[in-house]
Amino acid sequence: MSVAAEFEAANKQYAAQFNKGDLPLPPGRKVLVVTCMDARIDPARALGLSEGDAHVIRNAGGRASDALRSVIISQQLLGTREIILIHHTDCGMLTFSDEVLRSKIRTELKENADHLAFLPFGDLRQSVADDVALLQKSGLVLDVPVSGYIYDVKTGAITKV
Amino acid sequence: MSVAAEFEAANKQYAAQFNKGDLPLPPGRKVLVVTCMDARIDPARALGLSEGDAHVIRNAGGRASDALRSVIISQQLLGTREIILIHHTDCGMLTFSDEVLRSKIRTELKENADHLAFLPFGDLRQSVADDVALLQKSGLVLDVPVSGYIYDVKTGAITKV
Repeated sequence: MSVAAEFEAANKQYAAQFNKGDLPLPPGRKVLVVTCMDARIDPARALGLSEGDAHVIRNAGGRASDALRSVIISQQLLGTREIILIHHTDCGMLTFSDEVLRSKIRTELKENADHLAFLPFGDLRQSVADDVALLQKSGLVLDVPVSGYIYDVKTGAITKV
Repeated sequence: MSVAAEFEAANKQYAAQFNKGDLPLPPGRKVLVVTCMDARIDPARALGLSEGDAHVIRNAGGRASDALRSVIISQQLLGTREIILIHHTDCGMLTFSDEVLRSKIRTELKENADHLAFLPFGDLRQSVADDVALLQKSGLVLDVPVSGYIYDVKTGAITKV
């Protein structure tokens, strides 16, 4: 069975018990979470989110620059007024460089990815600090509270940076 | 209390019961989900995901072009071999145009956002079809199964496109 078929079966059970059909489009808690796509992070369970509470942007690393389009839409059109940015221990972004990945793509896919910045980082606390600063300094982002955290994949706990 | 403080309190409870500290970095089910940041969508609950199962990329609209950097990293470095793309009913991306948002930013933030493509769409089924096609045709994306769905925020159910 493909994973798609497994998801369809699991979703049938979810929809059968679903009772959140009247939630409004703007996030109820007016908050935006930016975090990594990492499989070990479940932002809803880890932060106590219910359906309707928060926008959740996820990308490789939880990088702010890659999230900017979505952050602007969230604030300008859907009223969020606080940002929580979370990177995490044992992140894949700590394990490679742009040149390593571009070279792999050149060799294995016969494609040129030199125009892509994959946004890896070498220091976890620094990446959180950099991304919080980027959001605080961007003229395209509202002057709202921005908090940065590290999520520990061994303990499930977040620690403020 | 800021939402950050509420998240910290909720996370203390999560971490106190956490028992998933030994999960490997690569997603166990070798699957990548791309969906919208919309607050009403909880991909884990809606698709039956546990911590460790799947990469989850989320951005405004669940747009594939905006997810490409993360898709490449997921496949090339972390071994995912199936993609599930999910857009949803009542999406904010159906409600505006690039020019409307750029004009709002010009007026309210005194900033020029003309260089940003916000990727709104006018037709939900078409946006899913377009994004599935983009992933299937990109030379930077592996030739893996790509399935497109619409999530209904009124019922919690996904429907294949």
